[in-house]
Amino acid sequence: MKKIINNAADVEREMLEGLVAASPGKLVKLKNHNIVLRANLNKNKVALVSGGGSGHEPAHAGYVGFGMLDAAVAGSVFTSPTAGAILKAIETVANPRGVLCIVKNYTGDVLNFEIAIEKARSEGITVDYVIVADDVASQSTAVGRRGVAGTVLVHKIAGALAETGANLAQVKMIAQRTIDNVRSMGMAITPCTVPANGVPSFELSDKEMEIGIGIHGERGMRREQLTNADGITRKMLDRILSHLEYAGHEVVVMVNGMGGTPFMELCIVNNFIKDYLYRNGGIEVYDTMIGNYMTSIEMAGFSLTLLRLDDELKMYYDAAVDTFALKK
Amino acid sequence: MKKIINNAADVEREMLEGLVAASPGKLVKLKNHNIVLRANLNKNKVALVSGGGSGHEPAHAGYVGFGMLDAAVAGSVFTSPTAGAILKAIETVANPRGVLCIVKNYTGDVLNFEIAIEKARSEGITVDYVIVADDVASQSTAVGRRGVAGTVLVHKIAGALAETGANLAQVKMIAQRTIDNVRSMGMAITPCTVPANGVPSFELSDKEMEIGIGIHGERGMRREQLTNADGITRKMLDRILSHLEYAGHEVVVMVNGMGGTPFMELCIVNNFIKDYLYRNGGIEVYDTMIGNYMTSIEMAGFSLTLLRLDDELKMYYDAAVDTFALKK
Repeated sequence: MKKIINNAADVEREMLEGLVAASPGKLVKLKNHNIVLRANLNKNKVALVSGGGSGHEPAHAGYVGFGMLDAAVAGSVFTSPTAGAILKAIETVANPRGVLCIVKNYTGDVLNFEIAIEKARSEGITVDYVIVADDVASQSTAVGRRGVAGTVLVHKIAGALAETGANLAQVKMIAQRTIDNVRSMGMAITPCTVPANGVPSFELSDKEMEIGIGIHGERGMRREQLTNADGITRKMLDRILSHLEYAGHEVVVMVNGMGGTPFMELCIVNNFIKDYLYRNGGIEVYDTMIGNYMTSIEMAGFSLTLLRLDDELKMYYDAAVDTFALKK
Repeated sequence: MKKIINNAADVEREMLEGLVAASPGKLVKLKNHNIVLRANLNKNKVALVSGGGSGHEPAHAGYVGFGMLDAAVAGSVFTSPTAGAILKAIETVANPRGVLCIVKNYTGDVLNFEIAIEKARSEGITVDYVIVADDVASQSTAVGRRGVAGTVLVHKIAGALAETGANLAQVKMIAQRTIDNVRSMGMAITPCTVPANGVPSFELSDKEMEIGIGIHGERGMRREQLTNADGITRKMLDRILSHLEYAGHEVVVMVNGMGGTPFMELCIVNNFIKDYLYRNGGIEVYDTMIGNYMTSIEMAGFSLTLLRLDDELKMYYDAAVDTFALKK
């Protein structure tokens, strides 16, 4: 294992402390918990909590701030945070306007968030949740579509509405509408290494790629011969377009690096997308995000996310945001 | 070589087209040239031009926009743009207020920019330039300190002053003052592969690192045993601090990923910095940037940059900026 770390057991804490150190006056970390909060919590708005395993940086702590999350709770790398940690995050941001949890669709995450939410409710906290399920590659698995990079757009849009003073039902409704309109798919050309394991998550020859990966360093749904950027991108777009009716709509495109992918390659991928979408159903690209938004540590590869827009989603997508990883 | 590209010969053009496609109304690419411009050039301000070899993305095209550059000219990967291409960029943005070129200190870049500038002057264009030389590792080489990630801060600060309507001499002066106050150092744990070469730039065992790298995939000044993040960071900070008197000053810290480094590791590196600087000369961290700002394609590693601030540098560092890769 070749990494720039200290001890594998400390990566989650040190990473969050390093992020908070770069955000004085904006972010704080709860002592003895891997929970990052806005330094100045606004208790007059619905509070947004998200989280999950570490290893997806800048998700989720990088999205804490004005216009997005109020708190992010981080488990160990690729491991759900405990119900106790999630409860601590909910309790810390709780206010009479209520709390909305944004949960990615993984068995562990859903289970632990549900336990924490039940406990919080028993304490008299008003809290609800949504489950993000945007990964089309896992549609036919037992758990169903996993929650991947589309989660960042749910943070963005629900976060923007929450800042306006909307109530919990309204914020939940727009979060769910974002979820209903977002689909993603990912691929990788290298594995990644969980620090505590010390070995790569799989092996892959120089001529192969994994298609239909998630965000936990796992293999994809299929191993295929590595082809060129345009061919891979077309195949992934076709798959996404077959899962939701995008024709005639405007979309946000997110070209998301998995952590070790150079920006050069993400731009080359994006170069194919706009014309192809327009030729396939008159889909118009309203805005494009290119970067590392939801990663698998140092994995090389990318995911594509398409958010189908309506006027309201567009308005909250465009709204001001001030977090470490996303600013508008 | 394992990359998500089409043809190695097209990576520079396709990458710039992909970036421009993500920035409608903000960026344009000159047809038949790897030159990216603001879509709406403001000809009533000093125009800033930078550039160099490709492979450093998002530098430099990602920094074209309000508050930073007016044009970026890209050569082939790790190869200076031709004097002809640089001249074309200068001619395109030229206006009576003048043009300032921001050049990284490499023999090819300096030579080609100087030829282009001489030609532009012979055409009656008012144009001047500065040479960024922030890399302390190369201080004692024949060419002297190379220009590396500190260049982004020169773009930022000179770009902010240029927006105020300052004249060419003033913009050059603040660019030079930024250069005089910025130092960097880099390290790597993996090489990178130039697409047109197809093979890694060097080989390195699992237990080794290169200390004192530049940004062209080259080996560092020294090969050492890979130690832990805190130890590496301390060594690099010590080296930077020995090259400029930072004691008692406020600084901007940039923790720059080389392209393939996970955000997790950059945050772990940053976690060491603030306290260490304070204990070593009472250096106060005014702001911290963590991300991929000046890369070597997919190399894993990082560089540290410290900018020594005064009130004016601070003001222009803080000023609004709206580019693809940097927003405030």
